[in-house]
Amino acid sequence: MERKNVAIVGVGLIGGSLALQLKEKGLTRGIVGVDASEIHGRKAVDMGLVDAMKTLEEAIQCSDLIVLSVPVDAINTLLPAILDKVEKQIVIDVGSTKEQLLGIVKEHPKRGRYVSTHPMWGTEYSGPAAAVKDAFENKAVVICNAGESDPDALEWVKEAYKKIGMHLLSMNASDHDVHTAYISHISHITSFALANTVLEKEKEEDAIFELASAGFESTVRLAKSNPAMWVPIFMQNKENVLDVLNEHIAQLRKFKACLEKENYTYLLELIENANKIRKIIK
Amino acid sequence: MERKNVAIVGVGLIGGSLALQLKEKGLTRGIVGVDASEIHGRKAVDMGLVDAMKTLEEAIQCSDLIVLSVPVDAINTLLPAILDKVEKQIVIDVGSTKEQLLGIVKEHPKRGRYVSTHPMWGTEYSGPAAAVKDAFENKAVVICNAGESDPDALEWVKEAYKKIGMHLLSMNASDHDVHTAYISHISHITSFALANTVLEKEKEEDAIFELASAGFESTVRLAKSNPAMWVPIFMQNKENVLDVLNEHIAQLRKFKACLEKENYTYLLELIENANKIRKIIK
Repeated sequence: MERKNVAIVGVGLIGGSLALQLKEKGLTRGIVGVDASEIHGRKAVDMGLVDAMKTLEEAIQCSDLIVLSVPVDAINTLLPAILDKVEKQIVIDVGSTKEQLLGIVKEHPKRGRYVSTHPMWGTEYSGPAAAVKDAFENKAVVICNAGESDPDALEWVKEAYKKIGMHLLSMNASDHDVHTAYISHISHITSFALANTVLEKEKEEDAIFELASAGFESTVRLAKSNPAMWVPIFMQNKENVLDVLNEHIAQLRKFKACLEKENYTYLLELIENANKIRKIIK
Repeated sequence: MERKNVAIVGVGLIGGSLALQLKEKGLTRGIVGVDASEIHGRKAVDMGLVDAMKTLEEAIQCSDLIVLSVPVDAINTLLPAILDKVEKQIVIDVGSTKEQLLGIVKEHPKRGRYVSTHPMWGTEYSGPAAAVKDAFENKAVVICNAGESDPDALEWVKEAYKKIGMHLLSMNASDHDVHTAYISHISHITSFALANTVLEKEKEEDAIFELASAGFESTVRLAKSNPAMWVPIFMQNKENVLDVLNEHIAQLRKFKACLEKENYTYLLELIENANKIRKIIK
């Protein structure tokens, strides 16, 4: 398949890791970066994630593929502005929310040049230094509202993700935002809230964290995630996240009621039901 | 240090993994197992966790060290019964709750032969097949109410845990139960509740789990944990767990209020505060 000149707008965890994969899989002739942070830009060049940093204007001019890997509030502003300027280039985003964004560009005359993607991979770290090799492999990537993209653009993007080792899922933006609320956004809220719960206690008891074991670390590690990325996600997906959060609080209240009423039969049932997650995650 | 003839009562994840370490570090002359499940017993012998299975009576007779690694409700029953029968043997438990247990044996004439320990390691799996080599290393082990144990028993147990590579913490039973509620028990409840939240949704939407990524798996993996182990822990530590659970629900409600009122400044603050967990877990 045809190698592209690539512009990565936002050379952080996701943009940087994607740049490494595009190089590794021979999908690019060269990669330039765009970033609001000069420090991040310099780091991305030093690490070899991108060949050079450019202004957005320059990057659009010299690229066949423009990747938007900035927080989702910035994507909402940047995508229509970039589509205003593209001719035959392909533009993709890798953001975690889709419904608002796809509404914003729905009627754009260049809508067809844009492919809406969400590769389901990330870590709790951010910035170019967090970029890793072999990211995304064996994970799912969602393509939203594929029918609104030009066939040539869609085809190239799908093939590129396949070469990276991802399996493709097709979904409309609205379903995507419901599913990610359940499978990703709520995990971050529970983890942030758990961190705050325990940090509150730590004020009284210094020794508490000496006891922290792998189980605690597992449930709380997402609490290290970048607020600049997550506040806009929660904002854009507010309705779905609230639905899941209400359901989650209701589930926690069942555990609370079991303990308060010493209803251990029901507690056993709740845990046995939770065990069914085994059929999902191995 | 002196090698012991060891009896492991409960040849599951913890008992089995500890047996492997006792052998590996040259702390034992031989290990027998005791287990209510014949299948688990046979598996433990086949895997070389223990040399032979015995009845509890036989095991007490032929051992210098008796390890109680059964669910905490069974420990409450077994420990006083075993102390009734020991002479100079050492008895330890590795259970996750201590206050009730230490109350039960406080006045026992053989209390001194017992050392109350909680090695802070585990996985979401159970049974002898879940036992792993090199478990416990570089983790903390809590010794509770150390002053109630005979000096020779305490000394041997402390040295043994050090040889396994654990660092020792000393704590009274009541503090232990508060701290483990924050650092371990609540993580399990949030994970069970999150699994139930998402499994509830899955009834409507089959495709949802195709999107599950490492972040989701991390926060939900403890939901695979064994109810036979966890129901008794929650029962015994009910008051502390309820305190933390109430605090956790209050923290989740702050996120809910931020979204409902679109107070994104406060949402940012909540997440920035949660980020402070970075100073605790690297």
